[in-house]
Formats: sequence, structure tokens, C-alpha cells
Amino acid sequence: MAIITLTTDFGEKDHFAGAIKGAIYSELPEVRIVDISHSVSPFNISEAAYIIQNAYSSFPKGTIHLIGIDSELNPENKHIAVELDEHFFICANNGIMSMIANIIAPKKIVEINIHDIIETSFPVLDVFVKVACHIARGGTLEVIGKPIDKIKPIKNLVPYVNDDKTQIIGSIIYIDNYGNVVTNIRKSFFEQLQKGRAFEISARNYKFKTIHKKYSDIVNFELPENQRHDEGRGLVVFNSSNFLEIAIYKSNMQTVGSASTLMGLGLRDTVTINFLK
Amino acid sequence: MAIITLTTDFGEKDHFAGAIKGAIYSELPEVRIVDISHSVSPFNISEAAYIIQNAYSSFPKGTIHLIGIDSELNPENKHIAVELDEHFFICANNGIMSMIANIIAPKKIVEINIHDIIETSFPVLDVFVKVACHIARGGTLEVIGKPIDKIKPIKNLVPYVNDDKTQIIGSIIYIDNYGNVVTNIRKSFFEQLQKGRAFEISARNYKFKTIHKKYSDIVNFELPENQRHDEGRGLVVFNSSNFLEIAIYKSNMQTVGSASTLMGLGLRDTVTINFLK
Amino acid sequence: MAIITLTTDFGEKDHFAGAIKGAIYSELPEVRIVDISHSVSPFNISEAAYIIQNAYSSFPKGTIHLIGIDSELNPENKHIAVELDEHFFICANNGIMSMIANIIAPKKIVEINIHDIIETSFPVLDVFVKVACHIARGGTLEVIGKPIDKIKPIKNLVPYVNDDKTQIIGSIIYIDNYGNVVTNIRKSFFEQLQKGRAFEISARNYKFKTIHKKYSDIVNFELPENQRHDEGRGLVVFNSSNFLEIAIYKSNMQTVGSASTLMGLGLRDTVTINFLK
Repeated sequence: MAIITLTTDFGEKDHFAGAIKGAIYSELPEVRIVDISHSVSPFNISEAAYIIQNAYSSFPKGTIHLIGIDSELNPENKHIAVELDEHFFICANNGIMSMIANIIAPKKIVEINIHDIIETSFPVLDVFVKVACHIARGGTLEVIGKPIDKIKPIKNLVPYVNDDKTQIIGSIIYIDNYGNVVTNIRKSFFEQLQKGRAFEISARNYKFKTIHKKYSDIVNFELPENQRHDEGRGLVVFNSSNFLEIAIYKSNMQTVGSASTLMGLGLRDTVTINFLK
Repeated sequence: MAIITLTTDFGEKDHFAGAIKGAIYSELPEVRIVDISHSVSPFNISEAAYIIQNAYSSFPKGTIHLIGIDSELNPENKHIAVELDEHFFICANNGIMSMIANIIAPKKIVEINIHDIIETSFPVLDVFVKVACHIARGGTLEVIGKPIDKIKPIKNLVPYVNDDKTQIIGSIIYIDNYGNVVTNIRKSFFEQLQKGRAFEISARNYKFKTIHKKYSDIVNFELPENQRHDEGRGLVVFNSSNFLEIAIYKSNMQTVGSASTLMGLGLRDTVTINFLK
Repeated sequence: MAIITLTTDFGEKDHFAGAIKGAIYSELPEVRIVDISHSVSPFNISEAAYIIQNAYSSFPKGTIHLIGIDSELNPENKHIAVELDEHFFICANNGIMSMIANIIAPKKIVEINIHDIIETSFPVLDVFVKVACHIARGGTLEVIGKPIDKIKPIKNLVPYVNDDKTQIIGSIIYIDNYGNVVTNIRKSFFEQLQKGRAFEISARNYKFKTIHKKYSDIVNFELPENQRHDEGRGLVVFNSSNFLEIAIYKSNMQTVGSASTLMGLGLRDTVTINFLK
């Protein structure tokens, strides 16, 4: 039984996601549909790229990932289907796939060309669903598109490193549900450059000298509970997706605040790491 | 395998939707449950009517749609089950079904009467689930209710047209996830009246003379990208559900704003079309 | 076919819930995953306890409930698996289970000890999923943990009663999607103490002398509709989960307001019942 996942900016209220599911089940009654997210910020390519990258590989090989963000067809925004890491992705060629493809080379990319027979103002419903069901039935990509070589890149994907390799300048690419801010600095990238050196991480006027393994590492469990003041403290971790993240211990954007709200850190803001000789 | 869809105003946090699903699977382990929306604004009949109308027809014939909005039983709010367009709908008789039924006549309507054996303060769980499972097992509507002729109408369903047919006065019935405002003016309704005439659409002090086929139609792709200023521009389209919609190109309510926030257009506001002879 | 439910504070946007689902389907292609809620307020144990308590028992016996709230492993936050009421629960031992366990004694509790072979910063993905799949395959709890006697309690679980039993002092434990405020006063608890006496319920400067069976009980349906002024009126009910709740008839937090916003009632605020005579 094939799995089709959905990642969109349709939101939780509108009928769009429901209509997609109905259309898929109408074609393939036995398929399994799994929501990854419908709450990507509208038209936010980077956010979608981050989410799909961190979710897809938990799914079984052969899973089909339908990504509905900024997918209106126009001369600069074509539709593609991509085979990569034994998974399939269907989306607009607007940069969403470049974060994954930067790490693992696609095996096959096609530009979808079934549009000459489908006129639509809702391409995720009318085109992506058709392509997903085609793949789920074992169809090949060549039937629904013509092979192309490259996918459109996304900006700010890779952090900047200075010439003498004493500094990484990264940027914030995602803010999660806890208000933690995620940078584009991957653990492997950091470790290749660090080579055991001490370092200082700067974000606005906040400085950190340690990267923790988990959030509660900053808690001194030997102190009695009423003498601890850890909730609300800032820290840096490599998160579970192995990106450098600035967090607040037990943060909540609605109540105590979060790294984003308390430190004033937003998308595209800079995070710098200076290596100390 | 039957499909049961859920459209409610239970929200994303509370246990209500989870409890409903558990109850359905307890009765019918093999059924498929599909969430359409749990984020309908509380007690908002029009919103629910718009969502279910635009989602239901993507599902296979025979699908059972459970709609949990304003469903507390009282002398003026009875429960009904409706067969229409080879789909089944279970909801309160509070106007939700009138938007669909205005286009396609119901084949059968029953007022649910199994309440004498069920005392409940959570009728969606205790009554609607029972009815849905009854239908999913192939049961007839007559067993769970008594046939009635009419369903309760909803206000503002159809736009007003003046006597000499030079003006349509519509109203805003839905605001979507992108902040685009959807009117009650259907494409077919508009075209019947237009008969090729030029027109001007007015909403507050905004005027439009064109209805586009898709959002990016307003972009001049021949200009270099840095000379375009299309993001944030207003436009009118018939949306994918064929309702007249005022939109902002690549809008985002949280960041750049939307048709609703930037033009100050809210639910029930008037949108007027004047035909120029 | 086993059912695994998910209750987390991951939110609707992030990839976490999607990754969990992918990991479960990778191990058990035939299992059924049901979302209960991903919108628990971050780190809010009481909210999670209330939600899971009110959702779990609708599911079939044998269902496995995976609860991902504040689940980072540390010296004071161990992971447990609990068998109770013929359901299975997997969560951190942080109080989430104490609301259910206060009513129904667990049959078995184990402290999960498979961590020596799993180093992780995302324990719900790497540990809870493994445990859930183990149970779904029919495995016993002893294989994945060592039996323990007690689970960690939660504060404010039970209301206070004065010595001569003329007063109940409860507190608000949950605010639902309609802004209704739910107290920790259960119907059975109230009725045992009431013994037919009249009473007055106080919350801030609001007083109530009646507990209704349903919300629309306050409406006088004999009046013509335009002479009624019930929308927006406060009332007290035992809600569908049998907790005492202060509500506003047809409330909506975004528009007309709710019990929480209009009466200024928040989590942990006091609600007092004085029995008369």
C-alpha cells in the first residue's frame, strides 16, 4: 500500500486539504495519506524545504511526497517530480527541493507536462494528485514529464565561511513551535571546520560558548528544585535534525516567551560563530 | 471501505475530534476517517457551509460527511441526515446544508429521531457517530429518522440583482487562509447576467475591471524580476471553487498583509458589480 | 489492526508529528495512526492530562496512546509505559498519567529502559515509537522497562473541601476552543457532597445558582427570536466530560468573546461552591 504525504500552506481551516484527500481516495481507495503539515507560512519556500527535509526520511522508501506551496503554474514556476533517496517528491520548481538535493543528488527530475490536457486554477488538486496517483500505481516519471538536469536553488542555504576559516556566518531559516530559532549551520558542517577549537556563538548581543546535546543539559539537577532558575534560560543545541539551534529552556511563545520573542531573533537574522585559535 | 469525513468547529487542541474518531473506529474498525476541517470559526454556519460544499464532491460517491457545528439539540435545532448527489451528510438543521442544496436538490432528508434512546450533551459523539456508522453499514435513512421536506435556509446565500440587471450586489461569505475574500457571486451566475458587457467591481473604495483566471496573471513576466512590483497587488479572480474572490498576489496575513487586512474587507461586507452598458 | 494515537505539543506546523508517523508506518505498515491533538500548549502537563483522559476511552480496548509532552529524558523525567483500563500509554513520568490514574488504578507501570541502546535528542521519535510498535506487535511491557509502583502526581488535581463540607474550592484546569473554562470539579464529586442542598457558585465576581444540562437550556424558546438575548450570557454546565464548566452561550473568542475573556478567568483561577444551609 503506497503512502502519499501532504505538506502545504493551505492552513487548518480551508477546504483545500480535504479536497485533495478526497481526490486521492477517489483514484486510489487503498492508499494511505499522511499529513505532514498544512501550516507552512503562506508562500514560504524555506520553511517548506526545512519541514519536508526533516520529515521525509522517516517514511518508508517509495513514499510519495506532495508539496503544495506556491504551486500556481506560470512561465517562471514549473511543476516537477523528483526521485531522490528512493522517495518521490511532487512540487513547484521554486527552490523547495534544493535543500534536500543539496545533500543527496536526485536520481531523476522531470518537468511535469500533462498540463496541456489540464486547465486548472488549483494545480495541487488537478495536477499533483494525478501525478501522485500515477507514481503510486507504479508509473514512471517519464510518462508525466520530460527529464531536466537541474532544480531551482534556494537562497541562504549554506552558511558563509571566511577565508582563514575562523568564522561561520549563518542565518536563521526556521522558527519552530516552541519559538526556538534554527540556523542553516549543520552539525557536520560545524565539526569539519571546528577541528576541536573553542568557539563563541553570537546572535544579536547574546553570546554562547557551549553547544549542548539536549535542552535539559543546562539544568543542575543536584540543586533543590526551588533553587533552580533554568526555565527561561537561553542555550544552544544541535537539534534533532542536526541544525544549530538557539533555544529557551521550556519556552512557550504565548506565556513565558521564546528564543525568537525574548532575544528578538527572526527569520534571516544572522548567527555568527567565531573560532578561537 | 466506507469513508467518513469530519468538519467541525472543535479546534485543533481539544479532545473532541479525537474522541469522535475513537468512537467511530470502535464501531467500524475498517472505516476510513478523513479530517476536512476542525478549524471552522465557532458556530459559524456560513463558513462550514462553504467548506463542506467545496470539499465534498472530491470524495467518492457514498462518502458520509459528519458536520459538527452548532449541533446541540433544542426545539429549534434538530438533527438531520441528508442524501444528496450520492453523498450523505449528517448535521444540525441550522442552514449548513442550504448552500449545497441550493445547487443540487437533496434526494432524501430525514430528521434524526434516535434521541429518545440517547440523552447526551455531546451529540456529535453520541448521535452523529451512531448515524454515520449506521449509514456506513448500508443502513437506510428511514431507520434513524422521519422524512422531512425542507431544510432550514441560510441568509445571504444568493447575491441581489437589480431590476434592470445592471448591478449585482454580493457579499463576502468566506476569508481563506491567505486572507483572500470570497464573495457569494458564482461564476455561472455572473456570466448569465454579464452577456459580454464590460463591468466594474467595487469593494469599499477599491475598483477592479478585470477578472483573472489565476493569481499570477497580473505579473508581467517580460520585465526583469527587480522591476516588478506585483507582490501585494490586489486582483479579482474566480477561485478554484468558482466564486468571485478579491485577492492579494502572494499575500500572507502575518507578514505582507492580505486582501482582508489591507483593504479592510470582512465577512458580510458588500461587493458590487456594475455592468457598463 | 492496532491503533496508535498521538497527543503532543508539537504544534501544527513543524515536521515532528509527520516524522513520528513516518517512523511508525516504517515499522508497522498496517497500523492505524490517529491524531488526538498536536496543539497542547508547550510543556503544559495539565492540559495534556485533561485531553488524553477525555479522548482515550472512546477508542477500542488495546489502543496505544503515545503522548509527547515534555519528554526529554533527564534524571527527574523518566519515560514510562502504563497499562490501564485495557489501554496502553507511553509518556514521560511528569504527571500526565496521574489524572487518569487517580480514577482508575493502572494494571502495570514500567519505567522504560531501552535508552542504554538509544542515544537521542528526539525521544518521542526514537524511543516512544519503538515502544509503541513493540506493544502493537503484542510485546509485553516488561521487555522494554522495569516495573515501578507509582507515577508522579500532578498538582491541583482534586478540589479542596472544608471540614464541615459546606464549601468546595476548585480551580480552572482547562480552557477549551470556545473559551469555556473547565474546573477540576467532577460531577460525581459534586453530587456526593451536595446531598440535595442549594448552592452558589462563585468565580471572580460572577455568581451562579444553577447547573444546566446543556448550553441552550438558558434559552427561552417561547419568546420570539428577536426578544431573546441569550448569546453572550454566562452559564454553568457539567460538560460532556462531566467536569463543572463555566461557559458563554455561543461564545467565540475571536468575535463576541468567551467565558475566559469576558469574565477574566484563566488557568489555575479559583471557582468556589458554597452549599446553603
